[in-house]
Amino acid sequence: MGQVPYQPLGAKEDDPFAEKGRQFAARDDQGFRTWRLRSLLVIAGAAALGFFCGAHYHPNPADAATANVASQGEALKKCPSNLPLASPPAKTNPWAPLSPAEVHDVKAWLFHSGQNLNLTEASGGKDSDNVVFNIESYPPPKDDALAFLESPDVQTRSPPGRYARVTIDHGGLELPVTRDYIVGPLPTSGRTKIRQLKEIYHRPDIPFNARGLLDLTTLFEPVGKIILPMAGAIEDLFGGVETGDPLTDTFIGNWGGGWSFDGSFRRVWITWKVNAPGVWIQSINFYNYIDLSGSDPSQWKILKVVYHNQTFPSVSSFVEAYTNGTLIRFPRPTLPSPNDTWASRRRKGAPRDLDHLPGPRSVSFAGPRFRVDREQGYISWLGWGMYLSFDRDMGLSLWDIRFKGERIIYELAPQDCLVQYSGHDPVQSITSWLDRYFGMGMLTRDLLPNYDCPQDAVFLPSTLYNPVLGVVRRERAMCVFEMDTGKPLTRHFGDLPGETGAVKGYVLTVRSIASLGNYDYLFDYIFHLDGTVEVKVSASGYLQGGYWNEYQEGYGSRIHQHSMGNIHDHVINFKVDLDIAGRNNTFRKTSAQVERVHMPWLDDDDWHSDSPGKGELLQQKLKYSFIANEDDARVRHSLNYRDSYAIVNRNEKNRWGSERGYAIHPGLSSVHNNIEKSQRLLNNANWAAYHLAVSQRKDTEPSSSSMWNLHLPSSPPVDFDKFFDGEDIEQKDLVLWINVGTHHQPVAEDSPNTKTNIASSSFFLTPVNYFDSDPSMELLNAIVLDPPLAKRHANDARTSNGDLPAYDHDDNGVEQHFHCIPEPPAPFSYDPQVGLTEEFVVGKDEKEIESWARRVQGVMNPFALRFEV
Amino acid sequence: MGQVPYQPLGAKEDDPFAEKGRQFAARDDQGFRTWRLRSLLVIAGAAALGFFCGAHYHPNPADAATANVASQGEALKKCPSNLPLASPPAKTNPWAPLSPAEVHDVKAWLFHSGQNLNLTEASGGKDSDNVVFNIESYPPPKDDALAFLESPDVQTRSPPGRYARVTIDHGGLELPVTRDYIVGPLPTSGRTKIRQLKEIYHRPDIPFNARGLLDLTTLFEPVGKIILPMAGAIEDLFGGVETGDPLTDTFIGNWGGGWSFDGSFRRVWITWKVNAPGVWIQSINFYNYIDLSGSDPSQWKILKVVYHNQTFPSVSSFVEAYTNGTLIRFPRPTLPSPNDTWASRRRKGAPRDLDHLPGPRSVSFAGPRFRVDREQGYISWLGWGMYLSFDRDMGLSLWDIRFKGERIIYELAPQDCLVQYSGHDPVQSITSWLDRYFGMGMLTRDLLPNYDCPQDAVFLPSTLYNPVLGVVRRERAMCVFEMDTGKPLTRHFGDLPGETGAVKGYVLTVRSIASLGNYDYLFDYIFHLDGTVEVKVSASGYLQGGYWNEYQEGYGSRIHQHSMGNIHDHVINFKVDLDIAGRNNTFRKTSAQVERVHMPWLDDDDWHSDSPGKGELLQQKLKYSFIANEDDARVRHSLNYRDSYAIVNRNEKNRWGSERGYAIHPGLSSVHNNIEKSQRLLNNANWAAYHLAVSQRKDTEPSSSSMWNLHLPSSPPVDFDKFFDGEDIEQKDLVLWINVGTHHQPVAEDSPNTKTNIASSSFFLTPVNYFDSDPSMELLNAIVLDPPLAKRHANDARTSNGDLPAYDHDDNGVEQHFHCIPEPPAPFSYDPQVGLTEEFVVGKDEKEIESWARRVQGVMNPFALRFEV
Repeated sequence: MGQVPYQPLGAKEDDPFAEKGRQFAARDDQGFRTWRLRSLLVIAGAAALGFFCGAHYHPNPADAATANVASQGEALKKCPSNLPLASPPAKTNPWAPLSPAEVHDVKAWLFHSGQNLNLTEASGGKDSDNVVFNIESYPPPKDDALAFLESPDVQTRSPPGRYARVTIDHGGLELPVTRDYIVGPLPTSGRTKIRQLKEIYHRPDIPFNARGLLDLTTLFEPVGKIILPMAGAIEDLFGGVETGDPLTDTFIGNWGGGWSFDGSFRRVWITWKVNAPGVWIQSINFYNYIDLSGSDPSQWKILKVVYHNQTFPSVSSFVEAYTNGTLIRFPRPTLPSPNDTWASRRRKGAPRDLDHLPGPRSVSFAGPRFRVDREQGYISWLGWGMYLSFDRDMGLSLWDIRFKGERIIYELAPQDCLVQYSGHDPVQSITSWLDRYFGMGMLTRDLLPNYDCPQDAVFLPSTLYNPVLGVVRRERAMCVFEMDTGKPLTRHFGDLPGETGAVKGYVLTVRSIASLGNYDYLFDYIFHLDGTVEVKVSASGYLQGGYWNEYQEGYGSRIHQHSMGNIHDHVINFKVDLDIAGRNNTFRKTSAQVERVHMPWLDDDDWHSDSPGKGELLQQKLKYSFIANEDDARVRHSLNYRDSYAIVNRNEKNRWGSERGYAIHPGLSSVHNNIEKSQRLLNNANWAAYHLAVSQRKDTEPSSSSMWNLHLPSSPPVDFDKFFDGEDIEQKDLVLWINVGTHHQPVAEDSPNTKTNIASSSFFLTPVNYFDSDPSMELLNAIVLDPPLAKRHANDARTSNGDLPAYDHDDNGVEQHFHCIPEPPAPFSYDPQVGLTEEFVVGKDEKEIESWARRVQGVMNPFALRFEV
Repeated sequence: MGQVPYQPLGAKEDDPFAEKGRQFAARDDQGFRTWRLRSLLVIAGAAALGFFCGAHYHPNPADAATANVASQGEALKKCPSNLPLASPPAKTNPWAPLSPAEVHDVKAWLFHSGQNLNLTEASGGKDSDNVVFNIESYPPPKDDALAFLESPDVQTRSPPGRYARVTIDHGGLELPVTRDYIVGPLPTSGRTKIRQLKEIYHRPDIPFNARGLLDLTTLFEPVGKIILPMAGAIEDLFGGVETGDPLTDTFIGNWGGGWSFDGSFRRVWITWKVNAPGVWIQSINFYNYIDLSGSDPSQWKILKVVYHNQTFPSVSSFVEAYTNGTLIRFPRPTLPSPNDTWASRRRKGAPRDLDHLPGPRSVSFAGPRFRVDREQGYISWLGWGMYLSFDRDMGLSLWDIRFKGERIIYELAPQDCLVQYSGHDPVQSITSWLDRYFGMGMLTRDLLPNYDCPQDAVFLPSTLYNPVLGVVRRERAMCVFEMDTGKPLTRHFGDLPGETGAVKGYVLTVRSIASLGNYDYLFDYIFHLDGTVEVKVSASGYLQGGYWNEYQEGYGSRIHQHSMGNIHDHVINFKVDLDIAGRNNTFRKTSAQVERVHMPWLDDDDWHSDSPGKGELLQQKLKYSFIANEDDARVRHSLNYRDSYAIVNRNEKNRWGSERGYAIHPGLSSVHNNIEKSQRLLNNANWAAYHLAVSQRKDTEPSSSSMWNLHLPSSPPVDFDKFFDGEDIEQKDLVLWINVGTHHQPVAEDSPNTKTNIASSSFFLTPVNYFDSDPSMELLNAIVLDPPLAKRHANDARTSNGDLPAYDHDDNGVEQHFHCIPEPPAPFSYDPQVGLTEEFVVGKDEKEIESWARRVQGVMNPFALRFEV
């Protein structure tokens, strides 16, 4: 394969360490071994302890001088802080999101009359218009991307042709429908064509009733209108706020989901909540089932009303029961006073000892050790390198992840986030979210510096198309940081010279956070020095909470007077397109079996005098099996993790004859969905029934889900189970589909927000016989010690007071105690201007700005239906 | 209960932040709420967006000035670095290890002729002497300790009487035996008595054949003697080293274990290995079975010899086969050349990009935020407080762990570490270590600063009695450090004022590392800000590796020419004496069950048209059960973790009526032993068969194991299953016995050392309805944001260029960007003087020092049998 040669040491940076880096690169391997044993250990006879040491490696004088100067307080210099520039294997990121110019180019091309698409601008458009819902880059076929990357002239040659995926909601058709298209090549020209994207879906079109949300605010008026007949009853039953504001200002409607079964309708259960900070956990036990089918809002209606477990088949029957007194009334909800912060994030309670001090923070005194190419979206760190991409549906994805120059993962990307609730009410009992619908990428906010990522994190931007807001650029969509894990990656304390020492544990984290209305998901991709990749999702934010009453026993915990946290399962699916020593890989299962085995040397062993078989013993033995067919490749973990799984290349062996591979090592909370085949998740999230699955890798099976799956459980655009159609998966290009998740049983401590330390789930991909030995032994941030007895024996001087000397050590010349004055951190400020750009604000009046701001809110929080009556 | 009142803020420290701390303490709770909503959100009608904000809290002018000064480069001051002093709830740690003076006092008292113990100094003693094997503190009865701690006059009153546990190996008796004694009260006086400690053991005495190892070097000569007849054969078959040293210098014997079944014999399989750095993974496929029974070394003999799978029933039959040519000879092992570092920790391979720079390190610019009382062994941090103890068998233990003034855990202590191997050779196939035997506390070495613990860790000492070395004090036996976890503990991004923000995630780690010959265990006790305790064990160091040949397939991976890593299970048992809102607790099981349930409001739902029951749906429901009897309280995790477990107090409810409790939340690699009831673990590690178990807490059941369990599988001193004798455990004082572990299937990357990132296992103890809401909302290291729209609506100024203003934020006045010049880290130096004290070294000649040094080595690495022929 035409791999780009691995460049272990770069020396581009213009800092005091650059010269040192070059010196290191120049020292040959042998030079590092000047520490040597003159003799192996001698114990017997007169020479009882015979450790000898050769010359200790001394950092060269120039290094030592630097260290001395740097350590003197008076001469303390400012620390280097420039972010080193990366050198990606190819100058062009083949998976880069479309640039704003590319988006505008495609959009103009689509709107051109020649395409006959009869399009309307989404901002201000109606459901009965034809609207461009999304424009984003479409990844090249893997063959093309690899041909490019593995080409010897990768630095000069053109990348694979660039194409856009375009989603159009054809509301203007007689039978409205949603369709995906491929448009390209880009930039647009006479060669540019449009074709419907069908090959990745399991149905020809997307029903219009499953379409994405454009601008939630356009729903407020029509929904308000059908609620209007209940206004008097609602105001009386639930009361106004203390300020006397009208009821419609006091409550808010949150969706239940999904909204359709087969696309023939769009019917939504909503739950009413107190419209105050922490709205999500302040239910008032009032629900409406609303029919929002079709493209004509005048046809929308309320199908059912549920008030405190009393069901009414229409608005009029509810109002009638309210009027004639047959409605069993419940006390009005207690609305929070302005000072009541129980459901907000405002600090409460007595401060703790020493908490007025800022906590410790991580500082790279010698400057950052990772490199970034912002332009192309590329990161490298201590042997790792990867490209980044970002899309509407799922946000951050990682591509062409290489370790020590070899590709480990072609694509690593989240696929969908399932949350399935339970409870005794119309909304919690049926709600099964698949958050891809709402756009996990679109709902990524700018990260809070120092809080969402450590003080020293580097932020990277994202650019997405939004039909209402236009091109949305977030300056802090992702962050990257290195940190000391606080524990050595390896260490030992031994007797013999060279047995004692440690490799420092560092990791590089690439993070993005999506806020899905109530919940926040932290997506962490964590790279380890030994070739391990850790994928971790942590959850925080608000519960989607229900109303607490006696029927709710068993569905969660009460968290406040009338509030509860309902139990729910989170399951998040990842695509991991592993390429282990090439593309042809096999899925290996390793079973630890207990065997009763005869060992001849134990035949007359006293040990076994009372055991049934002389010379027998119980022990474990591994049975390896290679899963030959996709149909057998959907897997649940066995009890006590007796079975384990790896992706191996049966044709590529390490030096010791073992198949090179990467194991799937379960991390925190390795769970799949507890419920199978509920109505709202009938076929649209079949991946959630397993811990992991492996299928043949195909350009036509790019994802385990689609944004429309949520509303089409009976016949989803992507039915994961259809990937598993009996194909051979031995020595084929494979994709691993793997879940993280939590069985979330909320408790009072989830109020106001869920905690990321417990609500965290992860997996590791870790080398198994991929290398010949631990590659982290390469690291310079490490130490080796030799016991002083060796030195003594070599007749080195005893210290003047007779003590034995300290241990010899070799720290590879890395100045662990290097000291300087770091750059002061920037004071906190948070000022993302998404959708609130200067161009818009200047010259607009208060009302226009507010209307626009509400629209931004409608797009960025498409969960809260605000009624305008 | 007489709880010591919780002191949220101390102000003892003499640093620039002290004044600020006092200001914080003075501000009442209300003062923290000056941020307030003047109105709840108003959406409808004309006032579309109606967020109002009250006055923002501004840090007081003095604070602001400090911050300004501190931020100016020219005025940058040195950072405060004094370690704040702790204020333990009681001045005396009732669980403190014996001081050196106390040890000497007890030892002198025991040696006094009045006790008639006929004792001999262990150092230099023989197996047929009576020797004091151990002297350490014996914890007071829990009733007494709590009566002391909960007494209102705890600060002035006397602690519970102090007692020593003394272990004597009575080698001088006609029927030699080992016994445990209680000696006290201390200091010794006329009142001091000795009595045999029997109530905690399930057998009256410890067979002498199960006794602890004193000084391994005393074995070298007698073992060398019985090996002598094979010397010629061995030298010929295995060869000498290149330097021409005799064979007996070239190889080393490692134990297999355990060594007895019922105490009637002591028979040891040893495996011969190349005596070079990384000895543990350099087997030569030669094994001896040696009888070391009794107290008379002249009776010891070799029972079996195995050479490359050929078994001989005696030394003479082996020598005969060698001489007469019937032995099938195998090639000599390739001995490593002095430059061959494959099995050592010396750095190898090409350096990686930027690795010549030291990595990031954590700095507490405002000074450490945890407090330590070195004298008493007490630590406090942000609401947490705990006492420390340290013993020979298992090292570090934690006592009276309180959070926000309430005791959560009375005792948290590891109990034993099991490692059970497999393989096709006489040693790996039978070896089942219980490392308590060797003394995990005794085998704790001084930690390597900056490598074993972060650069800014604080080290704490331990003091232990050792029969050969005397009182061993380690200055760096444990470390404590706070670190930024790199992710917020909670965070949310919302629409309404006060919904957006984050609490920074910090943890405090208390660590100790034991080196058990080949392996190293890192014991981490990690405290979280929300009341969660995380217990994590990570493993590194060398494999106990076997000889690779075709018989070994399925028992592990080949890791070098003739070396393999054999599969093995690690299981480590912890005692967690939880006291949840008092001592009377119940063990609760929560089962997530899937129910098909009818919901009336779904009766004519289109959704369910094709499902069997109209209006039915599938969802989860929790079933709580309370385990009434110990017999049902040994538990294995169910598939997909459908069942979960907590310790609750059924009589103590939180504000919302839920039982206060702590959940046992599985962490990384939650496994128990795959093998049950193998001969060498017949009854001595019954705890390893479960994930967790709960029993009534008793002073007579202080531990799930004993140091002698290893060698007495048929009738161990502590048989864990005997704790489970049908007793009622509802609302009783309970102990949770919980395991961490790994199914270790070694691979080439375990060479030279196993990596702590994957070889890591953990559990969390986390509040479930223990509080009324998340206590971490108290934290000052947090931020709350309000969207700029609120400000706009309040007619705050638009910025001059027309932009909307940045978000308002409240960081509680904590200067996250506080900057100063931190103390430079100390250059690395490692100079523990254990057993090599000045008093000994001064005036001794080379030979005496070496002899002593070897003895230290024999004690500190009791795994490597070195033969003196």
